[in-house]
Parts: sequence; C-alpha cells; structure tokens
Amino acid sequence: MNKHERISPAVIKRMPKYYRYLGELTKSGVAKTSSRELSEMTGFSASQIRQDLNNFGGFGQQGFGYDVENLRNEIAKILGLDKKYNMIIIGAGNIGQALANYTGFYEADYEVVALFDKNPKLIGLSIRNALIKDIDDMESFLKEEKVDIAVICTPKNVSQQIADKIVECGIRAIWNFALKDLKVPDYVHVENVHLNESLFSLTYYYNQINKSKE
Amino acid sequence: MNKHERISPAVIKRMPKYYRYLGELTKSGVAKTSSRELSEMTGFSASQIRQDLNNFGGFGQQGFGYDVENLRNEIAKILGLDKKYNMIIIGAGNIGQALANYTGFYEADYEVVALFDKNPKLIGLSIRNALIKDIDDMESFLKEEKVDIAVICTPKNVSQQIADKIVECGIRAIWNFALKDLKVPDYVHVENVHLNESLFSLTYYYNQINKSKE
Repeated sequence: MNKHERISPAVIKRMPKYYRYLGELTKSGVAKTSSRELSEMTGFSASQIRQDLNNFGGFGQQGFGYDVENLRNEIAKILGLDKKYNMIIIGAGNIGQALANYTGFYEADYEVVALFDKNPKLIGLSIRNALIKDIDDMESFLKEEKVDIAVICTPKNVSQQIADKIVECGIRAIWNFALKDLKVPDYVHVENVHLNESLFSLTYYYNQINKSKE
Repeated sequence: MNKHERISPAVIKRMPKYYRYLGELTKSGVAKTSSRELSEMTGFSASQIRQDLNNFGGFGQQGFGYDVENLRNEIAKILGLDKKYNMIIIGAGNIGQALANYTGFYEADYEVVALFDKNPKLIGLSIRNALIKDIDDMESFLKEEKVDIAVICTPKNVSQQIADKIVECGIRAIWNFALKDLKVPDYVHVENVHLNESLFSLTYYYNQINKSKE
C-alpha cells in the first residue's frame, strides 16, 4: 500500500483550504485560532476540522486552540509547500498561457521551466521566463531536466497520448486541464480541472434558482 | 425549501461527467449502454450510477440498458444545457482572457457578452466578439442586458465587493476563480474554481509518491 492512500482524499482536499484561511488570519494579525473559528470561516464543522488535523498529529492544545502561524507552517509541510517544484506546461494555448502567466500559485515555489506546443507560431516565444518549445523536444527535455509536475492543456484528443509519453519519461504528477480523464498507472497522480463540469453544475443550480422563483 | 436543495450536490457533480462520457460514446457510434459500462468509464459503481439517474426518473429499461443519445439529451435537459446563457467575465487578466478565448464550453450555448476591467490598457479591446468594458459601467450594463452567469476573475482582495455589487444587480449564478470564498445570500449559487487548491493537493500526492519510493 502506498503511503498516500492512507489518508482520505476528502481530507487532502480540505487541507489547502485550511492553509488559505490561516494565511488570511496571519495577514489580519491574528495569532491564535480555534476549530470553532475555522469552522465559521470554512463552513466545515469544528469536529471535522479537529479530526482532519488529528490525522497528522493534532497541533492544537485543548482549551488553547491553535497557533495560527505554526499550524499554517505545519500544513505547508504536510502538503509539501516548503519545497520548490519545477513544472512544464504542455499545450501553450489560452489556458496554458494563462497558467504560465498566473501568479496566484507562486506563493508557494512553483516554477514553470518550459512550455511545449506543436504550433510553429508559438514555438520560440517566452512567457515570463519560460520558453515555448517544440513538443518534439519534450522527451529529451524530460530526460535532461528535473521536472516535478506536468500540466496538460492540450486538446482532449491528444491528451492520453501525451500522458503516456510523460509517464514513460518519469513524470508522476499530472495537472490535467484537458476535458478527458486520463488512464495512468497507480503510481501516478492526476488532478483534474474540468472547467466544463464546474460550469455545467453551476448552470443546473442557476436553473433551479429560476424555477423556484416561478 | 428551494427545489435545487433536493438533490445532493455530489449527484449534481457527477451528472456533467455522465454527460461527457455519453458524448464520447455517441462520437464512437455507440447506441446502447449499461450502468456497468458507464461504471467502467467513469469509475463510479454501477449501482451509484443507477441511483443517480433514478433521482430524475430513471431513463433505463431493466435488462436493456440505456439509449445513449436519449440519456445524453435527458441529462442535458436536467443540467439546462439545452438553453442559451449570457455570461460576463469580471477581471480581464490572464485567466479572464483565457476563459473568453476558451472554446471548450461552447459545446453548450454560453456566450461571453462582455468583460469588465479597470485597466485602461485593456478597456476597449475585444476578445472574440466580446468587448472589455470599464468596470464602472458594469452596473448599468447589468441593468440593461440579460446576464445569466457572472465569472469573477479579479484579484481576491476585490472579489467580495464585486460579488456584493453583482448580486445587488440581480446576478444569481457566479463562477468564481478568485482565490477567496464569497459570502452570498442563499438564493445565489457560487461554483468555485480554486486552481491553487487543486495544485496543492497534487503536490501532496507527488510527495507521497516520492516518499513511497524511498
């Protein structure tokens, strides 16, 4: 059994939220917090929050709550945000370029080291400090450079083929924006961002709200 | 009780996936499918799938399975993908522009009717057929035009203020890309796309995979 299967995915999904809210508290100069306060901020129940944190050893003192900065640092360590990660983006279209330009996740230390595309009009251009390279050079790049995370922003009809190739080249973490689920071996982790699906759910609720007005 | 609270959010989250997979079956020329086949494609259990679809009346015939095209159309109707939606994008930075350029969700009928920004260098530019307008004109625009969905792509420090204003102007569906949860009244639905959080979860799993190799 892999270590990463021990803790439920739902817990791992909530950790970045705790991290974000603790960051907001830090910025507001708050030094101490409680599971009750975090519950009000996050919408998760206080007991859920305590249980989640207990998975990793607790961090709080009963009756005294949590030290905000300490808890945030501990969560950063759990997620691995205290390290640096090299990233490539495959597919330098709208979404790929936006991600390369995006500063929202640079709070932690992610560096886009290259983008790859097959469009000759894009190859050779730079986005921030990252060069758009020929997709045909991806394999040799992956063999020479240390790449931790690959972001797939290609059309869905080539995404599986790309995934096969990068996994073969040793990639174990894929952030997938292509509108198709990827088949990968057990030792590879994929996080999907299916923008479509989130918009379609929103559309459902929008229609329900309108119906309830009728 | 609002109608939209009746069906569990987890079910609504799965419906767009069924829709997507049924689309792939249609493209492959498959006319009939079963909950077992859908289970293999989606990773959800067959009984889960039957239960989900039963929420809306079933659509299958025991022993005969589902008619692919019919089921896809029914799900489209449930989600409301058979209608047209006008969208505005607030914040015409990297992500806002990428979404305006994005064709992935045009499969259903979403039209970006305008973008809004406060940057004078951006105001007046067009992305596809949508003009980037001055954020100060948003309120009057919302009063005059029919807008169904607002997409927030602003920095997080102004996102709540923007949300308050658009809700006041009648917006009931918000697609939120700003890295901060929004406080909105019960009659407004927000779908969050917190790119950060998805990347942080991926980072966690990446580190677990590396640890299990040691």
